[in-house]
Amino acid sequence: MSYAELVRHHKKLAQLEHLEAIAGWDEATMMPEGGGEARAEAMATLRGMLHEQSTLPALGDWYARADAEAGSLGAWDAANLREMKRGYVRATALPQELVEASSRAESRSEQAWRKLRKDNDWASFVPLQTEVFARKREVAQALSERLGLGLYDALLDGYEPGGRSADIAVLFARLGEVLPGIIQTVLEKQRSETVVTPVGPFPVDQQRALGLDLMKRLGFDFRRGRLDVSHHPFCGGVPEDVRITTRFDESDFAKALMGVLHETGHAKYEQHLPRAHLGQPVGRARGMSTHESQSLLLEMQVCRSAEFATFSAPLLRAAFPAAAARTPDAFTERNLHLLATRVVPGYIRVDADEVTYPCHVVLRFELEKALVESKLEVKDIPEAWDAGMKRLLGLSTSGNFKDGCMQDVHWPAGLIGYFPTYTLGALTAAQLFQAAEANVVDLRGSIAKGDLAPLDAFLDARLWGEGSRLGTAELVVHATGKPLGTEAFERHLARRYLGAA
Amino acid sequence: MSYAELVRHHKKLAQLEHLEAIAGWDEATMMPEGGGEARAEAMATLRGMLHEQSTLPALGDWYARADAEAGSLGAWDAANLREMKRGYVRATALPQELVEASSRAESRSEQAWRKLRKDNDWASFVPLQTEVFARKREVAQALSERLGLGLYDALLDGYEPGGRSADIAVLFARLGEVLPGIIQTVLEKQRSETVVTPVGPFPVDQQRALGLDLMKRLGFDFRRGRLDVSHHPFCGGVPEDVRITTRFDESDFAKALMGVLHETGHAKYEQHLPRAHLGQPVGRARGMSTHESQSLLLEMQVCRSAEFATFSAPLLRAAFPAAAARTPDAFTERNLHLLATRVVPGYIRVDADEVTYPCHVVLRFELEKALVESKLEVKDIPEAWDAGMKRLLGLSTSGNFKDGCMQDVHWPAGLIGYFPTYTLGALTAAQLFQAAEANVVDLRGSIAKGDLAPLDAFLDARLWGEGSRLGTAELVVHATGKPLGTEAFERHLARRYLGAA
Repeated sequence: MSYAELVRHHKKLAQLEHLEAIAGWDEATMMPEGGGEARAEAMATLRGMLHEQSTLPALGDWYARADAEAGSLGAWDAANLREMKRGYVRATALPQELVEASSRAESRSEQAWRKLRKDNDWASFVPLQTEVFARKREVAQALSERLGLGLYDALLDGYEPGGRSADIAVLFARLGEVLPGIIQTVLEKQRSETVVTPVGPFPVDQQRALGLDLMKRLGFDFRRGRLDVSHHPFCGGVPEDVRITTRFDESDFAKALMGVLHETGHAKYEQHLPRAHLGQPVGRARGMSTHESQSLLLEMQVCRSAEFATFSAPLLRAAFPAAAARTPDAFTERNLHLLATRVVPGYIRVDADEVTYPCHVVLRFELEKALVESKLEVKDIPEAWDAGMKRLLGLSTSGNFKDGCMQDVHWPAGLIGYFPTYTLGALTAAQLFQAAEANVVDLRGSIAKGDLAPLDAFLDARLWGEGSRLGTAELVVHATGKPLGTEAFERHLARRYLGAA
Repeated sequence: MSYAELVRHHKKLAQLEHLEAIAGWDEATMMPEGGGEARAEAMATLRGMLHEQSTLPALGDWYARADAEAGSLGAWDAANLREMKRGYVRATALPQELVEASSRAESRSEQAWRKLRKDNDWASFVPLQTEVFARKREVAQALSERLGLGLYDALLDGYEPGGRSADIAVLFARLGEVLPGIIQTVLEKQRSETVVTPVGPFPVDQQRALGLDLMKRLGFDFRRGRLDVSHHPFCGGVPEDVRITTRFDESDFAKALMGVLHETGHAKYEQHLPRAHLGQPVGRARGMSTHESQSLLLEMQVCRSAEFATFSAPLLRAAFPAAAARTPDAFTERNLHLLATRVVPGYIRVDADEVTYPCHVVLRFELEKALVESKLEVKDIPEAWDAGMKRLLGLSTSGNFKDGCMQDVHWPAGLIGYFPTYTLGALTAAQLFQAAEANVVDLRGSIAKGDLAPLDAFLDARLWGEGSRLGTAELVVHATGKPLGTEAFERHLARRYLGAA
């Protein structure tokens, strides 16, 4: 009876989260500026009710009684109860005053950061960022005691259930070791390649039409989702109604296009979560790294492949007839593939290619872990940042805070433990594609025809349909046959960028 | 203390209603079809929470204690408390089983109606509609006992607080008496007028651009609102972020345009409600007839006037250059005004002009009142309908249920007591315009220049800024100097349609 009670309760929570998701999407895509204040208040009230409902005094009892029934639950229900409790424990682990103090520090810091970053003003930002980390250490301490995890792992667990920094450190150490050498070799090789840049303008309407067409061909279900425009692209909404967004730049079609394909990867995961379990914790996507693996599988593994260029080149020429006439050489299969695989070490993480991207993440992981564990202080970040950038990417950011340690919203907003999931996602994506190649007949041939049905069938059976039944590590083994490693990612880079067989 | 408690509580209710409004708007304008089921569940949960919050057991106490403090409250707070209690009494007047039985009957009936209307199948609809009225009579009985009102008035009061059918009957009797004669005279007069019909297509983009331009010129604040497309046009959202919708028809620009102007009237009322009281019951619009008076004031009084044609004719020619070139005679000031004031008695209320429209409402008011009071049975509606249409508009609907008593969603959906507010709104609009003319220097001259600032200043001072501080009847006196009557409306018709001075 108590488990059934909990199921009903979580259904209600999911319905409130549905409204939060749609109102949040509206805020980013549709809401006029003047509506912001009233919306912020409405959202705060909704979130307050969600928190209240997630921590109802009666829940402790229900969980105790549900535990007593646990023996009689099937695999999905047992996993659902496990996921429910995970959320409950995290929601009740922190004293209310700490939640509020932490949230206030983060709001202040994030708001100030928007301006201070533009002004490259690190000195003014230090006290605000210091306050965020000070509160975050207290949060980590409280979570750590409740969860029996290390300080950093207690935060990481919020984004990556079951993720452990010791495991990540092993993977990232390997990447930190091999990537600088790989990058140098790739740069050497690409230096001799001639690449033609397409010349715009690329009208927004044509970009949108192409994006919608490719989403459709690649399996986005428009009966249960939409594409719109927002300042920061995201995948929102609910599994039954997935809202992805992009931002168009008339001088560069590739940015929005690759963004759309990336978000389509997220969206397809949501659209293929197990229907029977939607609205329950076990029916949700399995954490951030798995989610990112789906966007990167589509964007990096599939859509930046030579086979995809074969499929998409004629579509791109048809989508941008004027540009294709202006620079026909830019729209050949070969040139489009070269464009999609340029490697350029740079300061900015969000602009990075797939080869240099992990270096940005390795650096952030090392620093944020040290910050949480009080082995590094905020004032010393720039020095550590510069040293890391030199070591990993051969770039100095000395004095350039704007494009250095102030570039991301994550730390100003208190999102600590989030960064590693980007690269765990990239590793998972490579390993999934490798497993798909081993299991699907002529996977690359079907991609060259723009037919993702074979890949989707593999993902449906091995990953999408599993929701959160398994832990992340188990899910990777279930889907790929082995624990997460760097081998598939390294092979992928060697093959795509170094001409390995 | 208790009043302050109630204020906090109602702020929270308004924030939940904010989310309901935005999610409802999204459902009508943005949501893909497949999202409907999950959305319906989320909305039901939200509405359930709203009902729960509106009927909290603690509220009875709070109201009792707030009443004890009432002497110390200022005018706005006292009015706010009155409005709060009005909502509370209505929310708690009905036993839960009756609410549910009634709601089930209405859902079933409305859903069946969508198909049965198309098929002109009255016989199959009778039992469903009978069930709706049976439950509605029980609802009216329970409300009547609690509110000390007659059966029909107890329902009417939900849409038109303080509205009384005895007063409405007097106004409507007068309209039923004079309108048939006026209509005949107008038809006679218009028979000799030559009107040129503009020939489309009128591209959707051009229609949208014109609509947005006129909204802006007429004072819609786009910092706090939007225009979108939905199947049924409406004005939704919240006062801080008003969402109006329209539907475009490429063969007829006037439909969408007049619809946009109508909804803009609703929207301006919402955008000018008293800021200091937003989120409280007293800060809301004053019931349905006042709201409709604002849409009709803009659409009928202002935008169908000869002066508005002077202003808008060049804008229309510029908006539709191809059509203006095809049929230049259609786009003259005089012809546009003739088009905007055609009178054609017809079967369908929503297509009716302002002269024949009240006849449709008078008929529905008479019948629904008789139905609630068990003086008419559902099976006898068609006969009564046909008799009324003959008497008021000289048209027979015998056997044509589809365009007769099955045309509106209101009765199938259980919206009983709603219809009279349309015509009360028309009477109020005429009386407001008359008062504005008496108080604003050269009102018509400013309209001919497209300048509504003088009219807006009048409305702001006399009506918009009042929110729900006054009752509807008091508000009409406050704004126009006299109680609601038919005189201003009759004079308006005589002046516009019969050439009276």
